[in-house]
Amino acid sequence: MSTKEFRIPTKARTEFVDITAELLDHLRDIGATSGLLTVFVPHTTAGVTINENADPDVTSDISGYLDKLIPRDSGFAHAEGNSDSHIKSSLFSPSLTLIVEGGTLRLGTWQAVYLAEFDGPRTRQVWVKYVEG
Amino acid sequence: MSTKEFRIPTKARTEFVDITAELLDHLRDIGATSGLLTVFVPHTTAGVTINENADPDVTSDISGYLDKLIPRDSGFAHAEGNSDSHIKSSLFSPSLTLIVEGGTLRLGTWQAVYLAEFDGPRTRQVWVKYVEG
Amino acid sequence: MSTKEFRIPTKARTEFVDITAELLDHLRDIGATSGLLTVFVPHTTAGVTINENADPDVTSDISGYLDKLIPRDSGFAHAEGNSDSHIKSSLFSPSLTLIVEGGTLRLGTWQAVYLAEFDGPRTRQVWVKYVEG
Repeated sequence: MSTKEFRIPTKARTEFVDITAELLDHLRDIGATSGLLTVFVPHTTAGVTINENADPDVTSDISGYLDKLIPRDSGFAHAEGNSDSHIKSSLFSPSLTLIVEGGTLRLGTWQAVYLAEFDGPRTRQVWVKYVEG
Repeated sequence: MSTKEFRIPTKARTEFVDITAELLDHLRDIGATSGLLTVFVPHTTAGVTINENADPDVTSDISGYLDKLIPRDSGFAHAEGNSDSHIKSSLFSPSLTLIVEGGTLRLGTWQAVYLAEFDGPRTRQVWVKYVEG
Repeated sequence: MSTKEFRIPTKARTEFVDITAELLDHLRDIGATSGLLTVFVPHTTAGVTINENADPDVTSDISGYLDKLIPRDSGFAHAEGNSDSHIKSSLFSPSLTLIVEGGTLRLGTWQAVYLAEFDGPRTRQVWVKYVEG
């Protein structure tokens, strides 16, 4: 199955954007049955992660604490001034592999898939590849 | 191949439970040959990781230092009081993809696969999906 | 497709070695078309990650800040004195799954794949498995 590309606009420097609905729509569109879905962000200052979607305090606690743990102004050498974003991208990873069963994502009750923006606002790409098996 | 579900009880708030034997048994049961195995934790306060199984000091050093780096009481907003667990879950990732060859997992000499509990004790689920290739 | 093994020498305790060219060569060698490529490091004090390859300050900022965040001498119990390396390995992950399309890796403009050495110098292994789909 060919790679699907999404464009996701972000609105803040650090932000978690729920992309679960886009992934579910895509699996329906292609008639997926059972296999693996790799979600990949082709950026070095963003990532892809899973966390809770019930209480918005969870993602704001995560992004707030990350900014304390890895402050933007930490005496970095990289001239663009976003080394903190590069570190967060590697820690969260730009790649996440999910289980597909019965034509849909198998996720836990409280799980949502997030594009993790660490150097926004921008329009980000998310690439998705389904492999049957 | 359909998704296999395991139930893993944990005994402490932060704990690493070695699940390698369960994964190896499953690969034998389904007659796996060569492919990828995705191990997925359907929780937002736990993760799945690989680390050393020879010296138990390694996993206790990891969990102890994580608790120092991201203390439970960091002035979080989320009312359940476990935002630290949500952060650790995203940093460790709930998904890990492993190589299967010759009917078994290809792991390094010192590697074991761990369910990483960050908000126990609980009974956790681990979902496993094998794709041949 | 059988697992390909690479040997990658590292030159410092913490170092990011760009292995993108090796991965691209391998995909050409095996005549890959479309699928997933899992890159796996069979070590517990190293990982695999993606980051920027344009400005070398980026990877040196990442490794320098990691050493500040998780110092080697943090009163760890593990007698080998490299618990910081084990923690970094779990945070970066030893496994990364990439999208293959049109016979090659689909990476963003600034992305390169790195072996992340956290306890070098050593000769490290990188295992690579391609699954078509």
